[in-house]
Formats: sequence, structure tokens, C-alpha cells
Amino acid sequence: MPRKRLDMVRVEMLAVGKELLIGRTLNTNAHWLGKRLARMGSMLKLVTTVDDELSEISAALKGALARSPEFLVVVGGLGPTPDDMTLEAIAAGLGVGLRQSGAALTLIKEHYAKRGLGSIELTPARKKMARLPVGAEPLMNTAGTAPGVRLAVGRTAVYCLPGVPVEMREIFRRSVEPEIKKKIGKLHRKYLTLKLEGVFESALAPIIGEELRRHPGSYIKSHPRGIREGVSRIELDIAVVGEDSRRTDRIAWEIAKDMESAVGKIGGTVRRTAGSGE
Amino acid sequence: MPRKRLDMVRVEMLAVGKELLIGRTLNTNAHWLGKRLARMGSMLKLVTTVDDELSEISAALKGALARSPEFLVVVGGLGPTPDDMTLEAIAAGLGVGLRQSGAALTLIKEHYAKRGLGSIELTPARKKMARLPVGAEPLMNTAGTAPGVRLAVGRTAVYCLPGVPVEMREIFRRSVEPEIKKKIGKLHRKYLTLKLEGVFESALAPIIGEELRRHPGSYIKSHPRGIREGVSRIELDIAVVGEDSRRTDRIAWEIAKDMESAVGKIGGTVRRTAGSGE
Repeated sequence: MPRKRLDMVRVEMLAVGKELLIGRTLNTNAHWLGKRLARMGSMLKLVTTVDDELSEISAALKGALARSPEFLVVVGGLGPTPDDMTLEAIAAGLGVGLRQSGAALTLIKEHYAKRGLGSIELTPARKKMARLPVGAEPLMNTAGTAPGVRLAVGRTAVYCLPGVPVEMREIFRRSVEPEIKKKIGKLHRKYLTLKLEGVFESALAPIIGEELRRHPGSYIKSHPRGIREGVSRIELDIAVVGEDSRRTDRIAWEIAKDMESAVGKIGGTVRRTAGSGE
Repeated sequence: MPRKRLDMVRVEMLAVGKELLIGRTLNTNAHWLGKRLARMGSMLKLVTTVDDELSEISAALKGALARSPEFLVVVGGLGPTPDDMTLEAIAAGLGVGLRQSGAALTLIKEHYAKRGLGSIELTPARKKMARLPVGAEPLMNTAGTAPGVRLAVGRTAVYCLPGVPVEMREIFRRSVEPEIKKKIGKLHRKYLTLKLEGVFESALAPIIGEELRRHPGSYIKSHPRGIREGVSRIELDIAVVGEDSRRTDRIAWEIAKDMESAVGKIGGTVRRTAGSGE
């Protein structure tokens, strides 16, 4: 059976917004997206976070496209205010124009109508949310005003989503996730976390190395959690990905058993093992 | 007086670690660093988050250096385990070798000695933390084992810090912050947040645009906070940076007053204004 990896399909994220860079807002969108993709058997491979500036967004877009990911999820900067400039930056980066999209304008009008604002004036700020790069199509946003945007650039499907978490998630689930799933097929991931006590990470290192050689392609990673009451605590993550869920489960538990026994030999203990499998 | 901007000195962050990409760990280090820099009158201009892979880290390093930031803070991947490969990737990216650093080894030995582990064996995993790229110097880590690392590449000062938050912060405060402060001089930032009710962001957009034209170089940004009990809520951030704290304060409050009056004219209210100035 060919070995599968979470990152066989490359997915990148470009997060736009000064609030993410000045400690105003935690990038929970990246966290959510990363978790969601990992559970699907895919993986967020790289995240770039940039300031709301045309040149910064364009350059980051070009950098991402040069790595030819299958999917690039751009989050933030789709709204009506002056610092919402993601679509303009994407058009500039690709050397295409911006064009008022009839389909996008219809989505915006429908959104207002649904909220009882059918007679609201379509000011320039509101129309701006419907100015898409040439070749792009709008994606329905049932949680807010600004539509999402999809465009294809070479082999990369670029999706632009609003930065407001509820809107980002809603459009991702509805319009992006099915496309990624189509690309990766059905993959299972078994994930185990062992809570260790009484070992140093530096003593664990050669053990992890040996186990990784025994199970190439698996993922074993230690996270030091400090020393409490004189006892060193570590969380050890184990993940195995594959098409056969029974096989991924079996290998993950094998690794956990190996690690438990090895940790015991150097004087440590496994306090608790928690697992999830999707 | 020449206008100062938070990003006059470019600071970038390269965050290394799969745990940040699979929804295991929120990137609180980027949040902390961004807030800290903004308070100093500097700014985190771009963050790249990459997987623990030599090629990914090397490529991201080269991408960052190509933008010639004054400071590049690399966080994560300095520990003893097999996936800790930041220093190896940096050496590869720069085309230099790795060399055992006597100074770094001394720091590691002193760290163990302080914890009553003076006789601990210096295994390959432990010595690995002292293998630095040629030309680099170690930085003392009083909160953990792996030393930080400093090296100069062209006009960029590259600092490598451990990913464990308490260690990252401690080395940043001690060894990085003073260098950045030297470069930017003394800057003040006045930051105000207005909590608005009863206006749509799309109605606010032209008002923000006009105010930004009146005070170029200032920062005015709206964050929609959803609709509760039928009332639209927005947080509006205002920031002004300058050498003269009385002047930055005055301009920030001027903008706040302008915005309050403009919001009132379109039927909204300012519920609360919170401020901080450093």
C-alpha cells in the first residue's frame, strides 16, 4: 500500500490584517483551519501573515503561488473599509484588472434583502465588495455581507474568505472543503497524546529517533510542559495517516506501546494516553 | 517633524513547528511578539509559519532575508529532538556549516549544573543544541536548556529563540529587545479603541477613508463584532505613532472626537472608549 502523508496535497494560508501582527487579534483562523485540514487527512503546510498593504499582500501572494500549492486560502481584507484591499492586491499581483461582478452584487443585494434592508443604498463602499479580479467567481456568504472569492491560477485554486471567523468557517465548509476532499480522497488519521512524567526531552530524543526509523512516515513529537514539583512533564504526540483506519490505529498504538516501554526504561512514566481518530 | 511609522524598522518572524499548523498549538508567540513590538513603537511586519522540514525552513529563511528586514526572529526548533532542525536548516540556507560552539556548550553545562545535574552525560542529543551555524553566537537561556542564537546576515540580525513561550520571552527581553530599541529610538504610540453600536461597517467605511486623508500615517481600523439584539457592534481602533507623546495623544483624541461626531450623524453611538499609550 502506498504510504500517504498529510501534506501530499499542499494547502497554504495567507492571512491578511494588521490586527494579527500587533497583538490585537490571535490568529484563531489559522488554528481552526489547520485543525480542520488535519482532521480531513490534509494539512496546512505554510501560513504567511501580512499587513494590510497592497505591496505586502501582492508579494506574499506571488511567493505562495511560486510554491505551486494545490490550494491557497487567503483570509481577511474583503470588507468595505479602506484597509480591505485583498482583492485589489491579488489583481495587481496577477496583473489582471478588477471588474464589478454582477453575480457578486446579486449576492450582496440578497444578503441585505434577507435582513430586511432591501432598500439600502449600494454605496461605493458596498459595491467595492463585488469588485473581483478578472476571472474570479463569488462564493455565497450566509453569515455576512462580503462574498468569498474563488479563482484558479495555474494549478492553484485560490480561495479568498472574510476574516470574521464565523464567515470564514461557513464559506470554507460550504465551498472549499468539498474541493479539498475531492483531491485527497478518504484518509484516516490516528492521533494519540501521551502525558509523560519524569523524563527530560533530551533523554527522550534518541528514543523518538529510533522509533521514527522503525515507522517512517509516522509523526512523533514531544512538547515540554515545564517542571512542576520537581518533575519534568512532556506531552508526546503520535500521528499516523493512511487509507486503512484499522492499520493506522494499530500502528499508532504500537508506537505508543514502544514509547511507554522505552520511557519506563529511563525512569519515566506515562500518566495518561488520549486519542482521537478521524 | 518627520513622521514616524511603526514599520520604519522591519521586523519579521519565522515560526517553526508542525504543532502550529495542525491546530495543536495556537501561535501565542506571534501574538506576544507582535504586541511587545507594537508597544515599543516597532512592528512585526510579517510572520511565516512553517513545518519542521529542512527544505521548508531553509526556503522560508531565504524568502525572509530577500526582503532585507533589520530583524528576523526565528522561533522554535532549537531543542534536542529529531524534529528540532532550525539551526541545521539555517546553516543549509546560508550555505555554511554547523560547528560545535564551546560557548554554547558552556551555557548548556551551566544550565544543568544550576539544576543540580552537573554530572549529566552530554549525549549527542544534548550536544546538538550547541551545534551552531558558523558565524553564530549563543544567547543565554535562563528559563531552559537550549541557548538562543544570534547571527548577522547582510543587514539582517537573525535571532533564533526556543518555541517554549517562557524561554522565547526571556531571551527576547534580555537579548533582542535592547537591540531593536537601539535601532528605533524612542517612539510613543497612542492607541484608542471605540466601541460603536448601531452602525454598519459599510456605512463607516467612507468616514474612515476621509479621516485617514485628514491624518495620513495614522491607523484607523474597524473590527465587526457581530449583531446582538438587532444592534450592529463594531470596535474601532485608532493608533498614532510619534516621537512626541503629547502630540500623538492629541492627534489620537482628535481622531476619536471626529469619529464620534461622524458616527452620531449616521445614527450610531460610541458606547465606550478605552486607551493605552506607551
